Amino acid sequence: MGNRQAELVWLNGRMVPKQEAFITPDDRGFLFADGVYEVVRWYGNFFLGMDGHQKRLRRSLAEMRLDGFDVEEFPSVCQQLLEVNQLQSEEALVYLEITRGASPRTHHFPVQPVPPTVYGFARRFQPDKHAGVAGVVIALLPDIRWMRCDIKSVSLLGNVLSYQQAKERGLFECIFHRDGLITEASHSNILFVRNGVLFTHPESPLILSGITRGIVLQLAADLGISISLEPVPLADLYTCDEAFLSGTSVEVLPVVEIEGRKIGDGTPGKITRQLQEAFKQLIIQRGIEFVRPIPPVINF
Amino acid sequence: MGNRQAELVWLNGRMVPKQEAFITPDDRGFLFADGVYEVVRWYGNFFLGMDGHQKRLRRSLAEMRLDGFDVEEFPSVCQQLLEVNQLQSEEALVYLEITRGASPRTHHFPVQPVPPTVYGFARRFQPDKHAGVAGVVIALLPDIRWMRCDIKSVSLLGNVLSYQQAKERGLFECIFHRDGLITEASHSNILFVRNGVLFTHPESPLILSGITRGIVLQLAADLGISISLEPVPLADLYTCDEAFLSGTSVEVLPVVEIEGRKIGDGTPGKITRQLQEAFKQLIIQRGIEFVRPIPPVINF
Repeated sequence: MGNRQAELVWLNGRMVPKQEAFITPDDRGFLFADGVYEVVRWYGNFFLGMDGHQKRLRRSLAEMRLDGFDVEEFPSVCQQLLEVNQLQSEEALVYLEITRGASPRTHHFPVQPVPPTVYGFARRFQPDKHAGVAGVVIALLPDIRWMRCDIKSVSLLGNVLSYQQAKERGLFECIFHRDGLITEASHSNILFVRNGVLFTHPESPLILSGITRGIVLQLAADLGISISLEPVPLADLYTCDEAFLSGTSVEVLPVVEIEGRKIGDGTPGKITRQLQEAFKQLIIQRGIEFVRPIPPVINF
Repeated sequence: MGNRQAELVWLNGRMVPKQEAFITPDDRGFLFADGVYEVVRWYGNFFLGMDGHQKRLRRSLAEMRLDGFDVEEFPSVCQQLLEVNQLQSEEALVYLEITRGASPRTHHFPVQPVPPTVYGFARRFQPDKHAGVAGVVIALLPDIRWMRCDIKSVSLLGNVLSYQQAKERGLFECIFHRDGLITEASHSNILFVRNGVLFTHPESPLILSGITRGIVLQLAADLGISISLEPVPLADLYTCDEAFLSGTSVEVLPVVEIEGRKIGDGTPGKITRQLQEAFKQLIIQRGIEFVRPIPPVINF
C-alpha cells in the first residue's frame, strides 16, 4: 500500500472510504433495480460530453419520476471524485447511480417519499489501444432486454447475461437484433456504413441514446458523410461495408467480424477510420480548448 | 416498543438485527439487478408450495448460472426467519434474494468468483379479505418487461413502473399485453374463463411460472374444469366470462373490471368462485395434513 490512499466513494452527499460505504439491502436499487446511472469519461483535463450526460441523467430521472437528486450537482460530484482520489491528471471513468431509496419492499413507489440513494466512484481507465487499431470481433444475439432501453437504468440483467455469453466466447461485445432489426450493443451503440452512408438505429425506446453516438453523428455531419437514422435489418447485416461501436469507454471502435463472418474485407473500414481520427482530434482539441478548471472541493 | 423485539433478517449466513444489516453498493444486485428471489407464504403452520418455490429458485439460479447458494437450505432459512421473529403462529411472507455478490463493476461475471449475497426477511401478512369477496378492478398495459420473465430476477423495473401507474389510478393490479396477447400481471398471473374453459398463458420465457398458478391449474383439473394453456388474445379480452389473478399473496382473486370495462356481469364468476373455495379448502386441509414441525433453529 505504502503512500497510496484508500479509495473514496460518494455516498448520499459525502465522501467516505470505500470499505466504509454501505447501504441497506432494503434499497430499491437492490430489491427492484429501481435506479438510474451515468458513466462519464475524464481525459486527464476535461469530461467529454458532460452536458450530454447531465441532460440524459435528468431525462432518465424524469422518466422514472425519481426525485430528490439535484442534477446540477452532477459535474461537481464527478470532479470531486477525481480530486479526492488523485485522478485529475489521469484518464478515468466516473460512475454515479441514483436509486429510489430504501423502504419496506412494495412494488409501488414509497407512499411517503424517501431520499434517493446516491452512489458514485471514480477509477483509472484506458481503452485497449490495440483493439482500436485492429478492430474487434463481436457476437450477434437476440435482444432480450426490456422496452425502455432509452432510460439508463440499472435494470441491466439482460445486458449482463448477453455480454457474458460473448465474453466466454472470447468476443469483445455483442450486438442485438429485435424483430429483424439491429438495435445496439450490450453497453455501446453500433453503427454501420453501406454504400458510403452511415446507418444507425434512431433514438427510440429500444436503444440508449449514446453520448458518443451523438458526437460521432455530429462529426460525420461535419465531414459531409451521409447519415441515415434507420435500423439495419438483420438480413442486410453482412452486406454492410463497415461497422463500428461507439461508447464512452470504447470511443469509436472498428468491428471487423460479427458472429464468425467478416464485415467488408475484415479490416477496419475507411469511413470508420475517418471518424476514429476525427474523434481523436476532438479529444486533442477539447483537451486544449475546453479544459475546465476543477472547482474547490466542497462538502466532505 | 416495549417487549417487542427488534426485527432480525438473514444476511450471508446469519441472523442480524435489521438496522445492522448492510451491503456494499458494489453488490451486483445494486449495480446490475444481477440476482434472483423468492417469496413464500406461511399460513400459521405450513408454507404453501414450498417444494415448488424451492424448485423454481433452483431453476432461476441455474438459468442465471449463479452459484454458491445451497438451495437445500432455503426452507430452513425461511423457517428460522419466522422463528426468530416470533411469526410461527402468524400469517407471514418470507422473502429471500440471492445476488452474484460484490465485485468491481464490470458487465461480465466476476472473473474470480465471489460469494453470492443472500438477504432474507419475514413479515406479517394478511390479504385484503374484502377484495377476495368483491373482486378487483385492474389496468391493462403494454408489457415493457424483458424477454426472460421466467427467471424470477430482481430486474423488476418494468413491473414497478407499470404497477405504479395502476396504483395511482386506484387500481389493484395491471395485466400486460405483448404482440396482441395477454401475458400476466405485474406481480401475479392472470387466468380467464370463456365458455366454461379456463385459459391462461402457457409456461414460456414471457411469464413467470407462478406456484399458485400451478396449484390452481391442479385444482381445476381435480374439479373437472377444461383447461387450455393458450394466451388470451387482446381482441378477445372482453368476451371472456370471468377473470382472476393468482399469486402467493393474492391467492385466487376475482377480477371484475379491466381498464374500465366489466368482465362478465361485473361480479366474480362461478368458476372463479369454485376455484377460490377449492383453494380455501386446500389451505384448511394442508393446515391439518401437511403441518411441518419447525426444526431447531441453528447457525445464528
